[in-house]
Amino acid sequence: VKEIIVNTGRQKYPIIIEPHGLSQIGYFLRKNCLSRSAAIITDETVGELYSSRLMKSLDDAGIRTHLITIPDGEASKALEYTNSLYTALIETNLCRDDCIIALGGGVVGDLAGFTSATYLRGIAFIQITTSLLAQVDSSVGGKVGINHPLGKNLIGSFYQPKYVLIDPELLLTLAEREIWAGLGEVAKYGFIIGERFFGILEKNLEKLASLSDIYQVSEMIAACCQYKATIVRKDEKESGERRILNLGHTLGHALEAVTKYEYFKHGEAVIYGIHWAIWVSYKKQYLNESEVNKMTSFLRRFPIPSLPDIENTKCLLSKMNRDKKQTGNGLYIVLLKGFGKIQIEKVDDVSVYIEEWLDSIQ
Amino acid sequence: VKEIIVNTGRQKYPIIIEPHGLSQIGYFLRKNCLSRSAAIITDETVGELYSSRLMKSLDDAGIRTHLITIPDGEASKALEYTNSLYTALIETNLCRDDCIIALGGGVVGDLAGFTSATYLRGIAFIQITTSLLAQVDSSVGGKVGINHPLGKNLIGSFYQPKYVLIDPELLLTLAEREIWAGLGEVAKYGFIIGERFFGILEKNLEKLASLSDIYQVSEMIAACCQYKATIVRKDEKESGERRILNLGHTLGHALEAVTKYEYFKHGEAVIYGIHWAIWVSYKKQYLNESEVNKMTSFLRRFPIPSLPDIENTKCLLSKMNRDKKQTGNGLYIVLLKGFGKIQIEKVDDVSVYIEEWLDSIQ
Repeated sequence: VKEIIVNTGRQKYPIIIEPHGLSQIGYFLRKNCLSRSAAIITDETVGELYSSRLMKSLDDAGIRTHLITIPDGEASKALEYTNSLYTALIETNLCRDDCIIALGGGVVGDLAGFTSATYLRGIAFIQITTSLLAQVDSSVGGKVGINHPLGKNLIGSFYQPKYVLIDPELLLTLAEREIWAGLGEVAKYGFIIGERFFGILEKNLEKLASLSDIYQVSEMIAACCQYKATIVRKDEKESGERRILNLGHTLGHALEAVTKYEYFKHGEAVIYGIHWAIWVSYKKQYLNESEVNKMTSFLRRFPIPSLPDIENTKCLLSKMNRDKKQTGNGLYIVLLKGFGKIQIEKVDDVSVYIEEWLDSIQ
Repeated sequence: VKEIIVNTGRQKYPIIIEPHGLSQIGYFLRKNCLSRSAAIITDETVGELYSSRLMKSLDDAGIRTHLITIPDGEASKALEYTNSLYTALIETNLCRDDCIIALGGGVVGDLAGFTSATYLRGIAFIQITTSLLAQVDSSVGGKVGINHPLGKNLIGSFYQPKYVLIDPELLLTLAEREIWAGLGEVAKYGFIIGERFFGILEKNLEKLASLSDIYQVSEMIAACCQYKATIVRKDEKESGERRILNLGHTLGHALEAVTKYEYFKHGEAVIYGIHWAIWVSYKKQYLNESEVNKMTSFLRRFPIPSLPDIENTKCLLSKMNRDKKQTGNGLYIVLLKGFGKIQIEKVDDVSVYIEEWLDSIQ
């Protein structure tokens, strides 16, 4: 068992990383008197695999459960679903001292978290993350939200869970592509945290992807969560230091957007985004050639879809501008000055950097 | 000018009480660098009366404005309107460092506040309250939210504004019934704050209602806000002391609900709610007869609609149970042990108290 405490100054909660932890959640909730009644929000695939085990654990602890299943996929992260969840929660009479448990990946966590933040002005929120991406990313930081037809994640809030369970054994049922996409987000931590953690990833990448050593996978997840927890502690609302975590994300989000969220998994687009950030950093002479080679050869080991033809870089650029983390004029980009050395900088001639980079890799 | 600082521990903001303050808001925003662009959310009636004055003040300060008008009335406090607001805000490109200004009473404030809390995970929220009820109640405490078809205010969050402006001159265009309903909420403060403030209200009630002395009205509003600020400082999330402010509200809300929110103004229902709380307190021998007489003769001076026939007290009771402030079993009622002396108590035989009280006054 690994326990990481996330402390935002205003709130504090534990992340428990434990193979086989799913069966013990009822015990935990009862021990902490967190609730007498719990609404479980899950999707079809995860629900079929794991909801009965979760419900048994809660039943054994004397906690009433209500299972709410949403359709798989990003389309569920919408206001219509939030509304049906509100209705379901009111109809089951879920009170202020009850809780909502999210059982699933990013979509379920974001939607259930936003619902928890806004139902009865906020009720306890427990997160059980079942995808690698969610385990290393949305487990920490309290970002919850939904999409709007005009853009992703435009509606939401910062709402910290009371408890996060990461059971790495749940990854065993994930598709290989999902694991690799999750590792794309892990790669980001590799560059940010520094040479030692990067070295571990570099040495073990394919082995980690195979999930053959679940304890090594746990260690890797713990390192990412621990790092993110340190950042979030300093900057919950992403006004300063938390922007470091956007490495690869400004272009990554734009790539996802121009391909209509159908072509890339998030972590795959992030890999391209990091690749571009390395290119810009090199052009600005923040990185030397040997650093760039080491970094890019690592990224090339990811089996991700090739970059589609981007005919119109203006469109890509306008999506980057839309990113809600951009305030005012100019485009802030997270650059690298080496492993673990971050430089956040306003870049003016973004379009030139994009076109040159596209030419260089296509 | 009166300035009250609300400090929840996590956030701090000023409430400015100033006759003619509406014209100075642009200056304030510019001075505090609060935003370069502001979306003003208002309703049809208030917008027609005051939006141009507000927009001029912002224009003069070099702040871009976008006016968004919602229909008058409680029906606008719904998820559909929240969604149209999101769309309007995205389309005007409102960024994280811009702000939303609510210009209106409780409905506008609750809806605009909830939208501010959830748009881009929270943007700056400025509140200009134009009804007496909103000035003494929703100006303090950060409760924002919307209704659900199954119940009022079931969706929402705690989200503190950056700045609240109370311009008592704006009350001059309010209907007399709205003033009296607002005074119903003020009466609640009279009982809670204590004998001195109650004495002022008792002596000047009709004069205050006439708004003939706007400075006296300002003083009254300031006393309510100051008191509520003290409470909210100790208990932002309403887990303890803030419940004091529910005096008259458990039955009040239920009366509004059983009459489908069409018969009573909120403050009118609260008057009946306080009346009942006094009755229960008397039955429990917390108040003597002379106290009860003093209290109830004050309440009788309010020109409010007579209580309609309540055939079914069970229905009333079930609405009281639905109140989201009730956690678990039993019904917590705010009782009085004298002026400024509050007792929050779990009352078991609520239905008996209601039936007896109804018999006594009908």
